Amino acid sequence: MTNKIVEVLLVEDNPDDVDLALLALEDHHVANRIEVVRDGAEALDFLFCRGDYAHRSPGNKPRVVLLDLKLPRVDGLEVLRQIKDDPRTRHIPVIMLTASQEEKDRIRSYENGVNSYIVKPVDFDQFKEAMRAIGYYWLLLNEPPPDTP
Amino acid sequence: MTNKIVEVLLVEDNPDDVDLALLALEDHHVANRIEVVRDGAEALDFLFCRGDYAHRSPGNKPRVVLLDLKLPRVDGLEVLRQIKDDPRTRHIPVIMLTASQEEKDRIRSYENGVNSYIVKPVDFDQFKEAMRAIGYYWLLLNEPPPDTP
Repeated sequence: MTNKIVEVLLVEDNPDDVDLALLALEDHHVANRIEVVRDGAEALDFLFCRGDYAHRSPGNKPRVVLLDLKLPRVDGLEVLRQIKDDPRTRHIPVIMLTASQEEKDRIRSYENGVNSYIVKPVDFDQFKEAMRAIGYYWLLLNEPPPDTP
Repeated sequence: MTNKIVEVLLVEDNPDDVDLALLALEDHHVANRIEVVRDGAEALDFLFCRGDYAHRSPGNKPRVVLLDLKLPRVDGLEVLRQIKDDPRTRHIPVIMLTASQEEKDRIRSYENGVNSYIVKPVDFDQFKEAMRAIGYYWLLLNEPPPDTP
């Protein structure tokens, strides 16, 4: 496991959504700095440098976490809660990217400190356009919190 | 004081930046749903429906607050702190929009729960483009927390 620079942590179990997200983010030339994990437990291992990611440096944080809500093993809300509860990770911007239109998911996400909550457009082109805008906003406009050693 | 629907609360004391922000946000057809206040005390009065804004309904929240850091009377960090400390307002997305490149301002903003931190581009066209992207992201893509009664 290398300690490569990761700018985007994409937590998504749907392979179609992963492909589309990678395609849209390519425009921002970060393709080789995206880490894709398929479930919530792996996302937490990555962020807290445990398990398969034990050799990563904890100071090497992604600029943004794109987090699906419904995930295998550990769901998105629990991943969000653990990120925002820990002083080592709480400043990392977390964007919930979900198919859920349920108000309670949105409320619970904001209660747990999500930075932004986006409902994935069903239409292919709109989804791609949304991913491109998300990439532009969080990779080029937003200034992330400084890395900690 | 009417109880008009406000989608954007723009807290900015620099008249040039206000004009440019309004111009860029026009593209999203929200021009008549932007409230501009010029200092931090007025921003808090607006959000907490006090003083000149006592007749507003507290459930009628903006979708996003665009907050300058250096403000007269009450500075941006203190406004942020009060928004994020209060259960009535803590879910409102707050974007710090600042000229400050100082790392400590960025750290303190994230520590106080800012949703996003953006350094205003100095170049006129880049600033307008940034404002347009900010409007698109927070008014069209992001799903805000539901209104509370």
